[in-house]
Amino acid sequence: MQIRNVKILGTGKYLPARRIYSDEMDRRLGTPDGWTLRKTDVRVRHFADGETASAMGAAAAEEALKDAGLKLSDIDCLVCTSGTAEQPIPSTGSLIQKAMGGEYSGIPSFDVNSTCLSFLTGFDLLSYLVEAGRYERVLLVSTEIASVGLNWNHKESGALFGDGAAAVVIGRSAEEEESRIICSRMETYSKGARYSEIRGGGTRIHPREHGPGREEDFLFHMDGKAIFKMAAKLLPSFVDKLLRPAGLSMADIQHVIPHQGSAMAMRLITSRLGISQEQLVYITPNHGNTIAASIPMGLHEAAVQGRMKRGDRVLLLGTSAGLSLGGMVLVY
Amino acid sequence: MQIRNVKILGTGKYLPARRIYSDEMDRRLGTPDGWTLRKTDVRVRHFADGETASAMGAAAAEEALKDAGLKLSDIDCLVCTSGTAEQPIPSTGSLIQKAMGGEYSGIPSFDVNSTCLSFLTGFDLLSYLVEAGRYERVLLVSTEIASVGLNWNHKESGALFGDGAAAVVIGRSAEEEESRIICSRMETYSKGARYSEIRGGGTRIHPREHGPGREEDFLFHMDGKAIFKMAAKLLPSFVDKLLRPAGLSMADIQHVIPHQGSAMAMRLITSRLGISQEQLVYITPNHGNTIAASIPMGLHEAAVQGRMKRGDRVLLLGTSAGLSLGGMVLVY
Repeated sequence: MQIRNVKILGTGKYLPARRIYSDEMDRRLGTPDGWTLRKTDVRVRHFADGETASAMGAAAAEEALKDAGLKLSDIDCLVCTSGTAEQPIPSTGSLIQKAMGGEYSGIPSFDVNSTCLSFLTGFDLLSYLVEAGRYERVLLVSTEIASVGLNWNHKESGALFGDGAAAVVIGRSAEEEESRIICSRMETYSKGARYSEIRGGGTRIHPREHGPGREEDFLFHMDGKAIFKMAAKLLPSFVDKLLRPAGLSMADIQHVIPHQGSAMAMRLITSRLGISQEQLVYITPNHGNTIAASIPMGLHEAAVQGRMKRGDRVLLLGTSAGLSLGGMVLVY
Repeated sequence: MQIRNVKILGTGKYLPARRIYSDEMDRRLGTPDGWTLRKTDVRVRHFADGETASAMGAAAAEEALKDAGLKLSDIDCLVCTSGTAEQPIPSTGSLIQKAMGGEYSGIPSFDVNSTCLSFLTGFDLLSYLVEAGRYERVLLVSTEIASVGLNWNHKESGALFGDGAAAVVIGRSAEEEESRIICSRMETYSKGARYSEIRGGGTRIHPREHGPGREEDFLFHMDGKAIFKMAAKLLPSFVDKLLRPAGLSMADIQHVIPHQGSAMAMRLITSRLGISQEQLVYITPNHGNTIAASIPMGLHEAAVQGRMKRGDRVLLLGTSAGLSLGGMVLVY
């Protein structure tokens, strides 16, 4: 058990203006009316329209700073915790710093990437630096443009995703405060490394190889069944290893904020892990799967809706490409 | 000052078999005989030839494990600390775990990216988790294939880089051991975010936009003069802020292991920071700039050559795209 006296100081989100409703998605995918909504439970997702990921991230970050009553100069470290990058070089963290007007700030800015679990991984890592006093306040930003890399021939995955950004400011919790991180855990089983991937665009398949017949190499590929099978098998014991050393069971958790991978994944975790509808923070219907922004967006929604209150125990939980499992229990 | 009782347990490196000597580089660039060597001081660099970054990283990691007398199952966390990614999804960390045969290992695996400073950033971050007891032993792997993204029309940058991988195992240092991290620091000035970049390949410019007239968007672009000017201005005070709180001056350091950005950058840091030839670990002539693998490769070379001994004070130092500056002082 690794208690860290770290708390969430503020949250923010940004969604692009352009809304894609499920009926528009049906037309885009060539599916019968109602197919998208029935399959995915996503009524509306937002798609970026000329916006950059760094501008979206900066907007979410500004809102999180405002929520925390802070300004950029109060921040000691900026970490982009996204599953996608705006460009290969430099880090998206640097580009977010620039978009926030921090060109001369000197704030250390870099990226942490574990695909859909990037926020959780970044939060987990940086909490140790906040606890140790290296940084007082850290800005975590997840900003995702999924829509450019979707494969419209693969209806099951194409219908799931939305674009958006979310940001969280973390800082040290005072002695008398309840807020803290109770425990966190991550596991990666690369047996599933190819179950969800974009093969092209990095050093293995350079963009110059894009062309007729190679398009799919540069689009998101997902073997939903294989992921579901592997996650279903691994999740119960993962959650047990997360909660048990902290003396917790699922009944001790007020809010479960999962990575909103898909409606199917949500049903899996609620049924296999004994999570009630009252515990579950479910934002899939009006966001879709926003990759790594999904968990901080759920945190933001639970906070602004007044549903999550100081002192509540919160479980952040998800799976990602890799295949990785990640979880954290915190007192908000 | 942030002392961490963390030590380097082992190091490894891997260079692809294919060697590109400076005369071959002259022919490739269309420069006069001797130009590459005179400009870059790189006699030979290695270029990957069909190898993947994850396979290269796994080879370096195996050597580091062997050096530390460990096997993969002794590792609690695997972090890919590269400036380039093998593919956009999943993380290169997962792919390295797979290449090492760790498919069912469950070892948490993810990426930390601050371009050329990724190793330093990852080492810095994870040292806090080792110090706190979250992970006992962490494997850091930097694996870079620069050669696929170089712009041969831009001779100054094209001539600089080499491919390669390096890995370092870190773990907790026992009470009675001298080995520890004394201090570390990072600063990012996004004023320089566009001084070195690859614009295309992420969400801003998707690979589908690759085509005639757009090739350079997907290749490395560097404004060497602007970087040099900014780094020259920022480095002296950065190093002062790193060393002074620890009560150290450059004379207290036995080995300076810089990011081998270019021979020009090496001259800059030695002249401006008062680093002697005896202190400098200089591996540019037979490696080139291997992006984030450059610093751990220097560490490996200094260790295997017997030059760096337990108890020696070592300064890791560099700049990266972002523009970031990073430094760490450790007792080996």
